[in-house]
Amino acid sequence: MNTRFTLSLDAMGGDHAPKMVVEGIEIACERFPDIDFLLFGDEKQLKPLLDACPRAKARSQIHHTDEAVQNETKAAVALRRGRNTSMRLAINAVKDGRAAGVISSGNTGALMAMGKFVLKMLPGIDRPAIATYFPTQRGDSVMLDLGANVECDERNLVQFAVMGEVFARNVLGVQQPSIGLLNVGVEGFKGNDAVRAAHDILRESTLPIKFHGFVEGDDIGLGTVDVVVTDGFTGNIALKTTEGTAKMVAFFLKQALTGSFMAKLGGLLARPALNVLRTRMDPRRYNGAMLVGLNGICVKSHGSTDEIGFATAIGVTANLVNGQFNERIKEDMGGINIDQSAAEVA
Amino acid sequence: MNTRFTLSLDAMGGDHAPKMVVEGIEIACERFPDIDFLLFGDEKQLKPLLDACPRAKARSQIHHTDEAVQNETKAAVALRRGRNTSMRLAINAVKDGRAAGVISSGNTGALMAMGKFVLKMLPGIDRPAIATYFPTQRGDSVMLDLGANVECDERNLVQFAVMGEVFARNVLGVQQPSIGLLNVGVEGFKGNDAVRAAHDILRESTLPIKFHGFVEGDDIGLGTVDVVVTDGFTGNIALKTTEGTAKMVAFFLKQALTGSFMAKLGGLLARPALNVLRTRMDPRRYNGAMLVGLNGICVKSHGSTDEIGFATAIGVTANLVNGQFNERIKEDMGGINIDQSAAEVA
Repeated sequence: MNTRFTLSLDAMGGDHAPKMVVEGIEIACERFPDIDFLLFGDEKQLKPLLDACPRAKARSQIHHTDEAVQNETKAAVALRRGRNTSMRLAINAVKDGRAAGVISSGNTGALMAMGKFVLKMLPGIDRPAIATYFPTQRGDSVMLDLGANVECDERNLVQFAVMGEVFARNVLGVQQPSIGLLNVGVEGFKGNDAVRAAHDILRESTLPIKFHGFVEGDDIGLGTVDVVVTDGFTGNIALKTTEGTAKMVAFFLKQALTGSFMAKLGGLLARPALNVLRTRMDPRRYNGAMLVGLNGICVKSHGSTDEIGFATAIGVTANLVNGQFNERIKEDMGGINIDQSAAEVA
Repeated sequence: MNTRFTLSLDAMGGDHAPKMVVEGIEIACERFPDIDFLLFGDEKQLKPLLDACPRAKARSQIHHTDEAVQNETKAAVALRRGRNTSMRLAINAVKDGRAAGVISSGNTGALMAMGKFVLKMLPGIDRPAIATYFPTQRGDSVMLDLGANVECDERNLVQFAVMGEVFARNVLGVQQPSIGLLNVGVEGFKGNDAVRAAHDILRESTLPIKFHGFVEGDDIGLGTVDVVVTDGFTGNIALKTTEGTAKMVAFFLKQALTGSFMAKLGGLLARPALNVLRTRMDPRRYNGAMLVGLNGICVKSHGSTDEIGFATAIGVTANLVNGQFNERIKEDMGGINIDQSAAEVA
């Protein structure tokens, strides 16, 4: 489906919005010449920004609104009172068929609540989950949920496993992705009730997925499995912990390579290789997490990202649209009866 | 209190036990000439190992037992049927006053259950927590709980905050440690009920601690606070995630520095500096987590550690004994009424 399509953008979401949104479009335009953009936000701010970005301007249409969801607004409040916010209007455009997908760098809770309310859920899925891929020793892996659901039961976790499997297969191109449940140990009795029950369902069920069993925190970086399944509280903290640790190691490395004359010289000679490493680990390369389970493509970009990261999120969304991601999930979920699988175990 | 004292060791706990235990003593003997050791375990295995380690042999006394707690044994079962295991007998030695502290690299759940049963809790503490320190950009920080309690309420979290503060002050030597509660966002409404309620208690209470508020996963590596407080499920996964990420970055770095001739040459010149970095990040340097809250010094060593890591755990335990850690906690807790603080908020 590499035909022309439109993405709707919450132009006011994110710490550096709307500037990074417009500049992100400008960058993305080169790689994706077949995308048009609907920008929802403050016309007074957006117009001069677009004037400075000619490629973005040629492909973008502004839909003015004064309102935007604030970071500190609770999801329920945003849902009730935010009908004219840039986020809500951008989501509406997907519902109405004016856009093939929506991207926001704004308030995650609000995006999830509005997405669920406007787009509804895919058949067989109770709650959306935030999914993204990240680098590991063995290539990219997928992790979900990264913060949509602070508390999850076994039914949610099993659904996340199925959606994560589809994500890894269709977005990462892994033939038969392996699935791991994140836990505090690999023995079956470890962990809380939800992970133990989900483990039993996945282990015993007839779901056509490759279930590895429990994995631990260090398995994330090792790339032990293609899909790491966890609740949104743990997943959010685990993902951000990897970011913080990678930054810490980079900081230590920089210190080490400026310590002595020999170290400096070594660092200088190795600089091109180290730059490749830096690019490989750059979180902006992995920006753009999907709210899987919604009946519409909805991508959450990191709140603090810049134009390069936002351009990545546009690319992620374009791939999801081109890959007809939600149609694939629907097809795959059609052959899977989670309730029946759970019932067989119980 | 740099006088002579005795540590009791579960000589059979850990993947590489009992060899790494005996060799770990041999290493530790150099740094700590004033420690004697009680070794609980299989005499047939321990005797030849001690014969090969003359310094360790001179300071160790074997207490034979055939039984050991297995990794896959549930805590409740270990507690009920494990009265003659090396772990249990080693803990008993602390209770009886024959040893000033105990170290085990075995089953964490069993160690906690037995520790609680035999040693009891410090006054005012409901549950023990596993605490350790680890490297950050701003020096070492403390995190707890790392896996003792899969589910925690606000009362547990507040107690962990107080114990972590004492740990940072007395073990790391931080004058007025700052405390952060690990969460999925910094806004007060984020997270689950337990972290929100603990946040309110710590924010509003008259506890003489420096409460920073919520921190996120990336704050762990950044070293934003001196003490990171969380439940045992999240803490265990966060700690192991940092280990896995550090390994992944080291792996990528090695790849980068073997890619081209120039990179190899650079890596060669920088090798001494990179070795310092490797040592700095070596998890064996941070081995030995305390079960804080128990009325006795009880240290959990990593199950997969080697003799170098075990020697570190001996050092950690020696510092806790020398620093009269539990006496300090008792003193500090004496001036703190968590229940009253909670009541004032409620």
